[in-house]
Amino acid sequence: MSNDLKSMLSDFKDGKISADEVLLKFREKPFDDLDFAKVDLHRKARQGTAEVIYGAGKTAEQIIGISRSMLKNGQREIMITRLDRDKKDLIEREIELSYYDTAKIGYIGKIPEPDGIGTVLVLCAGTSDIPVAEEAAVTAEILGNKVNRIYDVGVSGLHRLLSRLDDIMSASVIIAVAGMEGALASVVGGLSDKPVIAVPTSVGYGASFEGITALLSMLNSCSAGVTVVNIDNGFGAGYTANMINHIGG
Amino acid sequence: MSNDLKSMLSDFKDGKISADEVLLKFREKPFDDLDFAKVDLHRKARQGTAEVIYGAGKTAEQIIGISRSMLKNGQREIMITRLDRDKKDLIEREIELSYYDTAKIGYIGKIPEPDGIGTVLVLCAGTSDIPVAEEAAVTAEILGNKVNRIYDVGVSGLHRLLSRLDDIMSASVIIAVAGMEGALASVVGGLSDKPVIAVPTSVGYGASFEGITALLSMLNSCSAGVTVVNIDNGFGAGYTANMINHIGG
Amino acid sequence: MSNDLKSMLSDFKDGKISADEVLLKFREKPFDDLDFAKVDLHRKARQGTAEVIYGAGKTAEQIIGISRSMLKNGQREIMITRLDRDKKDLIEREIELSYYDTAKIGYIGKIPEPDGIGTVLVLCAGTSDIPVAEEAAVTAEILGNKVNRIYDVGVSGLHRLLSRLDDIMSASVIIAVAGMEGALASVVGGLSDKPVIAVPTSVGYGASFEGITALLSMLNSCSAGVTVVNIDNGFGAGYTANMINHIGG
Amino acid sequence: MSNDLKSMLSDFKDGKISADEVLLKFREKPFDDLDFAKVDLHRKARQGTAEVIYGAGKTAEQIIGISRSMLKNGQREIMITRLDRDKKDLIEREIELSYYDTAKIGYIGKIPEPDGIGTVLVLCAGTSDIPVAEEAAVTAEILGNKVNRIYDVGVSGLHRLLSRLDDIMSASVIIAVAGMEGALASVVGGLSDKPVIAVPTSVGYGASFEGITALLSMLNSCSAGVTVVNIDNGFGAGYTANMINHIGG
Amino acid sequence: MSNDLKSMLSDFKDGKISADEVLLKFREKPFDDLDFAKVDLHRKARQGTAEVIYGAGKTAEQIIGISRSMLKNGQREIMITRLDRDKKDLIEREIELSYYDTAKIGYIGKIPEPDGIGTVLVLCAGTSDIPVAEEAAVTAEILGNKVNRIYDVGVSGLHRLLSRLDDIMSASVIIAVAGMEGALASVVGGLSDKPVIAVPTSVGYGASFEGITALLSMLNSCSAGVTVVNIDNGFGAGYTANMINHIGG
Amino acid sequence: MSNDLKSMLSDFKDGKISADEVLLKFREKPFDDLDFAKVDLHRKARQGTAEVIYGAGKTAEQIIGISRSMLKNGQREIMITRLDRDKKDLIEREIELSYYDTAKIGYIGKIPEPDGIGTVLVLCAGTSDIPVAEEAAVTAEILGNKVNRIYDVGVSGLHRLLSRLDDIMSASVIIAVAGMEGALASVVGGLSDKPVIAVPTSVGYGASFEGITALLSMLNSCSAGVTVVNIDNGFGAGYTANMINHIGG
Amino acid sequence: MSNDLKSMLSDFKDGKISADEVLLKFREKPFDDLDFAKVDLHRKARQGTAEVIYGAGKTAEQIIGISRSMLKNGQREIMITRLDRDKKDLIEREIELSYYDTAKIGYIGKIPEPDGIGTVLVLCAGTSDIPVAEEAAVTAEILGNKVNRIYDVGVSGLHRLLSRLDDIMSASVIIAVAGMEGALASVVGGLSDKPVIAVPTSVGYGASFEGITALLSMLNSCSAGVTVVNIDNGFGAGYTANMINHIGG
Amino acid sequence: MSNDLKSMLSDFKDGKISADEVLLKFREKPFDDLDFAKVDLHRKARQGTAEVIYGAGKTAEQIIGISRSMLKNGQREIMITRLDRDKKDLIEREIELSYYDTAKIGYIGKIPEPDGIGTVLVLCAGTSDIPVAEEAAVTAEILGNKVNRIYDVGVSGLHRLLSRLDDIMSASVIIAVAGMEGALASVVGGLSDKPVIAVPTSVGYGASFEGITALLSMLNSCSAGVTVVNIDNGFGAGYTANMINHIGG
Repeated sequence: MSNDLKSMLSDFKDGKISADEVLLKFREKPFDDLDFAKVDLHRKARQGTAEVIYGAGKTAEQIIGISRSMLKNGQREIMITRLDRDKKDLIEREIELSYYDTAKIGYIGKIPEPDGIGTVLVLCAGTSDIPVAEEAAVTAEILGNKVNRIYDVGVSGLHRLLSRLDDIMSASVIIAVAGMEGALASVVGGLSDKPVIAVPTSVGYGASFEGITALLSMLNSCSAGVTVVNIDNGFGAGYTANMINHIGG
Repeated sequence: MSNDLKSMLSDFKDGKISADEVLLKFREKPFDDLDFAKVDLHRKARQGTAEVIYGAGKTAEQIIGISRSMLKNGQREIMITRLDRDKKDLIEREIELSYYDTAKIGYIGKIPEPDGIGTVLVLCAGTSDIPVAEEAAVTAEILGNKVNRIYDVGVSGLHRLLSRLDDIMSASVIIAVAGMEGALASVVGGLSDKPVIAVPTSVGYGASFEGITALLSMLNSCSAGVTVVNIDNGFGAGYTANMINHIGG
Repeated sequence: MSNDLKSMLSDFKDGKISADEVLLKFREKPFDDLDFAKVDLHRKARQGTAEVIYGAGKTAEQIIGISRSMLKNGQREIMITRLDRDKKDLIEREIELSYYDTAKIGYIGKIPEPDGIGTVLVLCAGTSDIPVAEEAAVTAEILGNKVNRIYDVGVSGLHRLLSRLDDIMSASVIIAVAGMEGALASVVGGLSDKPVIAVPTSVGYGASFEGITALLSMLNSCSAGVTVVNIDNGFGAGYTANMINHIGG
Repeated sequence: MSNDLKSMLSDFKDGKISADEVLLKFREKPFDDLDFAKVDLHRKARQGTAEVIYGAGKTAEQIIGISRSMLKNGQREIMITRLDRDKKDLIEREIELSYYDTAKIGYIGKIPEPDGIGTVLVLCAGTSDIPVAEEAAVTAEILGNKVNRIYDVGVSGLHRLLSRLDDIMSASVIIAVAGMEGALASVVGGLSDKPVIAVPTSVGYGASFEGITALLSMLNSCSAGVTVVNIDNGFGAGYTANMINHIGG
Repeated sequence: MSNDLKSMLSDFKDGKISADEVLLKFREKPFDDLDFAKVDLHRKARQGTAEVIYGAGKTAEQIIGISRSMLKNGQREIMITRLDRDKKDLIEREIELSYYDTAKIGYIGKIPEPDGIGTVLVLCAGTSDIPVAEEAAVTAEILGNKVNRIYDVGVSGLHRLLSRLDDIMSASVIIAVAGMEGALASVVGGLSDKPVIAVPTSVGYGASFEGITALLSMLNSCSAGVTVVNIDNGFGAGYTANMINHIGG
Repeated sequence: MSNDLKSMLSDFKDGKISADEVLLKFREKPFDDLDFAKVDLHRKARQGTAEVIYGAGKTAEQIIGISRSMLKNGQREIMITRLDRDKKDLIEREIELSYYDTAKIGYIGKIPEPDGIGTVLVLCAGTSDIPVAEEAAVTAEILGNKVNRIYDVGVSGLHRLLSRLDDIMSASVIIAVAGMEGALASVVGGLSDKPVIAVPTSVGYGASFEGITALLSMLNSCSAGVTVVNIDNGFGAGYTANMINHIGG
Repeated sequence: MSNDLKSMLSDFKDGKISADEVLLKFREKPFDDLDFAKVDLHRKARQGTAEVIYGAGKTAEQIIGISRSMLKNGQREIMITRLDRDKKDLIEREIELSYYDTAKIGYIGKIPEPDGIGTVLVLCAGTSDIPVAEEAAVTAEILGNKVNRIYDVGVSGLHRLLSRLDDIMSASVIIAVAGMEGALASVVGGLSDKPVIAVPTSVGYGASFEGITALLSMLNSCSAGVTVVNIDNGFGAGYTANMINHIGG
Repeated sequence: MSNDLKSMLSDFKDGKISADEVLLKFREKPFDDLDFAKVDLHRKARQGTAEVIYGAGKTAEQIIGISRSMLKNGQREIMITRLDRDKKDLIEREIELSYYDTAKIGYIGKIPEPDGIGTVLVLCAGTSDIPVAEEAAVTAEILGNKVNRIYDVGVSGLHRLLSRLDDIMSASVIIAVAGMEGALASVVGGLSDKPVIAVPTSVGYGASFEGITALLSMLNSCSAGVTVVNIDNGFGAGYTANMINHIGG
């Protein structure tokens, strides 16, 4: 944009074109020459925010290519979600990266020091929900949050959950991960006065409908303060928890 | 059947027809002349079991007609479900009946003494679930059960439910009534080792889908021992609880 | 609890019962005598948090009764959601309350000064979405937040939305309310780096399926940082926004 | 809990802390120090109740680990559901276990003598439903019930079912397993006055929707006394049947 | 068509146009001038077939207008389905018609003598299904069939159905009408070797989903020979039964 | 049954038991001793009706076993549906059978001469629908019907269908097989006055939802005389067409 | 924008600010000061395009207000959709407008002369579909198109449709409106080589699911060239047809 | 037809048959002898239109067979959609064809020069949507259109889309391809005054339901001028865009 517009402004100064013509120029192409600088500056302003590559459906070669381009452009932290071990093996021949096995997250760069307001608590109902819970937890950690994990605390054994009430009380954001009937979100929402991000998982069978039941259950939570993300979307929950935990930052 | 077959047997004795012909006769009409006596005797054997009239979609006149016919045939207890107050007013001009307002149940006859194995506990999550809970509770009472009611103990305020743990522990059958996300059934199922009959209600809005969410949630309960009836089917829950509470009787 | 337990402790001090017996007592009734003080104190700790009465399905008499009981117990702010004007007219004969017509919210007490971290921005797509947006906005205000409203900025006229980019950039939490295809949430999520709470509305016809389409659309938002509440659940969005805007408080 | 609280009580006796402080201590951590002893004792009270491991989605190694830990803690009967033959082969190298091939259930320990009130009758409609029926039947047997199996008695050949009327009449609990249109549950529910637990199966094609049709059909049974569990949930049916058959025990 | 084409043929005979031009003419308008005589003759060939007016959504005036036009064109039997009593009252001021109250069918003309191959048997499960059953039965009668009705024979009381086995055996076509779980169709399909037309009704509540459950159940019938029509489509069932009962006629 | 009852009748003749006792005996066990002779005789009465084995989900060994048992019991024609070529290869080592490749039907015995009232016409919309169409056509042939096949006449090329109008007009029953939007059934239903059995197929992608769209479309056909079977249920359509084509036989 | 920016440009000319500062200014507020002139000019360029007010859910007063504001701003043609007669009566006391009763469209201004490429053909299947068809037809007329209407040409009476083949052949865009199974769209799509806009209607009952069946059917049309709009969205179809009929204009 | 009818006409000229007999002949077989010449000529009239073979579910051999038959009949351009690389390899041994890898389209013949009214713009939201976008783009090119592709312009990064506003403004038809929440269609529809054909893709996970969410979202677009095709139906979109871009041609 700069050159084009600068010469136009120069023409204007020289009296070759009128102020109206300058304005018309801007009106005619309201978006196409703008760098969207403000948006991007705004977004990158806070230190330590990684760029994210959604790994599913991309080849190792594509991921390497995108990562290199990002690194060349000065990005120092890159997070790759839904990254299978096989692809990870191929990528690390070319680029150094850490790998979180259960979360299926690859990471290039240095994990930032936690600088959020408080702790992000990640709860899950059953052992089968752990991969989704880990995607949420690792995402939050990578984005600069202290994370507390309490797993396998489904409501069918309420005492396990209740014995961790202090953790629930002291978190600043809670992520509740559950499949089947997803009741964990409502119970936790009732015990805490902090925002609860509910993540339905596709764990279950029959009328769990690959996570639909848990999703609907969480959307209808009788506890206020519960919001919901897509089925198995641990990343989205961790990402939002990070935003909340850095509000005002 | 009797006359027909008796004369046939008489013919057989007189040698007019052969044993094979007698058998053929029975084979030819395997069902049509049978009184289904055994089934019916079996069903009525236990004292105090009321006949049930499903009141929805029947006029007061029809209900009066059916009731009179039953009474004439010796039935002494009649229960009418889903009975609006208006119809009840018309019926009681003709037949004496008790009326349970919230449960919308009318009853002709004497409520039997409770003779079940233990107590039927009816729990519900919110005040809007009470009509369905009452339908279950009154049904169980009318069929001869001691009923314990604990209402408005949804999981968003877990302490209200937990403060009644003794009642939960001491019941012999539990009916858990809830709309919205229906998490009550799972929580109660986890606290008790007795059968829990879950009743989803149509209470809620939006993605509660008139009770579908609660229904699905209950079907996917992570707690074993939970079975489910149709949405708003308090009667079915009370009826089954009675069966369970009289097992072996 | 206090009296019971105090006399037990007194008995213990007097040597009438052993330490084991005291502990057994607590174990036997793990919940029923506890005041849940911590939970409640925690919840009420911050000044100005109103108790909430869900007005739909309650009569004016019931609402008056509940409110009086709350007031008697020292609660000074009470919020009544989904309150029709008719019921409101009946209630204000007995109790003084403010009424937000579009939001259908009644309020008893003094609106607190905003004390949140930043501004809660409430956006909606069309004029028909305004009642839900107002439910969110008024809820947030009542709970102590500065609220900025921008209505009728659906994505079919993108320039209206984009002309308010500064408001989007400067909010600390955003509530995006939309029916039909619910695209507003994704677009706003892409423009902001703050958490976006998406509220699908039942606005639309045909294949909007009373809000299901908007709900699904929002759950699948390609923009990270978007979480979702139930269809038409403006209250839940405002309530959660308040929690987020007071994180660390 | 004991030590902590005992020393606190000791301090109280010594006058180091007041009764109020003792109570506050309990209030502050309403759940976290409680052993939930009562719940657990209650649950294990009856002899012969096996712990259950849900085998699907767990590796043989994980199952071995969990089992060993349970055995070490004194549990003598362990039931493993949804256990493939391959995993079973790996497990039995380490731990002695029986294996029910059709039911896909592994069992560690001694099967208890049946001690229920009566007989659990397991019916299924077609030969393809047998694996689910066996899961129910073996579960009930392992938990201490006499089980009667009648398979392949779908309603399209009613005489096969009716020829077993005596078995139906004499059972104390009935489990009805069916896919496709699931009509078996309604027919059996009409013939018996005992509780019928209906198990929809994913058997069928096209508009059977992997068991949804059978599920809906069973939920809408015109016969009272029918309750429903999740699709293919033979375990849940057998587990509940055991509870019912031991009511009052 | 005639005049146009006749003059063209005349021109052809006179040598004014060629054979190719005649053929081209027909090719150019392959459909528009054809009387569809064969189709219509074929359809009306059999005596006594009434024209059908779908009454729902038409005003009495519209129905009168259509009927008069039909009568003027020589149609002597007209059947009007889904006709409310109010509209019927208005119509009979102008045109003489019989009215079947429960079936909501109006009829102009003389009911033909039954001339089908055998008897059409109409069964229904509950009293609430009778209006749909009557629509089927009256439709079949009006189209010239002997109809046998057996109502209120749902499978929860199997003996009532079985006691009518001779009627089932001797019918040439069976229409099975049922709501809720729709099991009647499967049971009847298993007892008969004649085609069974299943009509799901919207009778039921909750998870009956206005007839969807019955519809799905009937489509998945384990009995061969069952075909299905739309929910509450008694007319379609009666119309098809008539076709079947006149096959080869 | 015979022996038991014959000796009972003998006892009766000898005066050892009364007529009442004989009748009671029959009442007590209404079903269990009956051979269901009438039903079965009725069903087998017509020559050439094959027994049907549903091959899907059965092993070759099981099919061989069932077939041998049937042949031993005098059944001379056996039809095996959904039979993969692999299983067929195994079966024919033991039992001689014909095999219809596209229809995936195996057949033991002699195909009967067609003896139906008229011709069964099988239409299908696209080439991908042919396997289902063949299942219907071969089923009808095996059961003794003359079958006319017209394939690939979908409504997007209406002229192909219309050019076969004579075949449509002269059939006595029509089977219309179609996936995608299933419009063929309505168009054919409008052209014929004979019963049309519509078979939705799972052919299509995206919003065809594995045949649901075709199924719904056919259920809502604007043409009277169309009834529907389950998705891909060619067998059911052929079986019902046979019933219709032998009405009165 | 103008004033702000003009003074900035003036400052620039005067050397008070640099060219970089001018550019920064634009970058900082990429959207908010822009008039979106180009977009709007573009949109309004063609003569005779009316502004559209969606009348449903707006009061007569609101519509009058919006219309007056538009008229004041120079808009000369205004179209109001989904306008009930009652509201229309109120509006026309204040503003002169034409009213299309069946289409429920109000119109302020002069209908433009048709200036499209060809004719827009509007077809509908049944008389109940006419209101939606009229909404499409009147919309297209108001926007400047010659419209040809052919109604009540459903596929159950194919000859009626085929007799109008010339109209189908000569249209430049076709709108096919149908409820129930929606087969009209596929049949017309197969007969024409012009784009067909399919409009499903909510006409039907039972498994038509308020238009879902027609919608799905149309989306799965086996005829290429068919695109679909929302259920009952006659306006959208007419609007798009207008766009297509003015392509290149 | 010609010969048959010509001899008939000759007979008529010779007086052997009457004009009425000629007409009767036509009436009797209204469709079967017609060449549908007009339809076909009409369809093929424009130069360069390829025949289309739907490759999915056809073997390479079948495709070769069909192609050869088409080529023999004078068709010079043949397009094969959904053609896997494996099949393509087999086909090109026999017939020379171009292959578009990403679009999975094979093409026999010469690509025609673009002769449409303007440019077809193909947009897609994410990289995973590209295969569907390419199917649309290549289809349009093969049918004779200039195509402009802009990929990876999802609404979460609005600036990428807005920077291409000139392309959007200057297209004559737009195809918007998107999965997940499908918001791209609405945003583009709001920016352009040309018809937008929206193609939902099955890209996404969880509650994207294989494209249903994007489909519903697009059907409910708040922007007028958006019509929708089936999920992943890039071909249909390209085919319709071609029709629109040749309107009046």
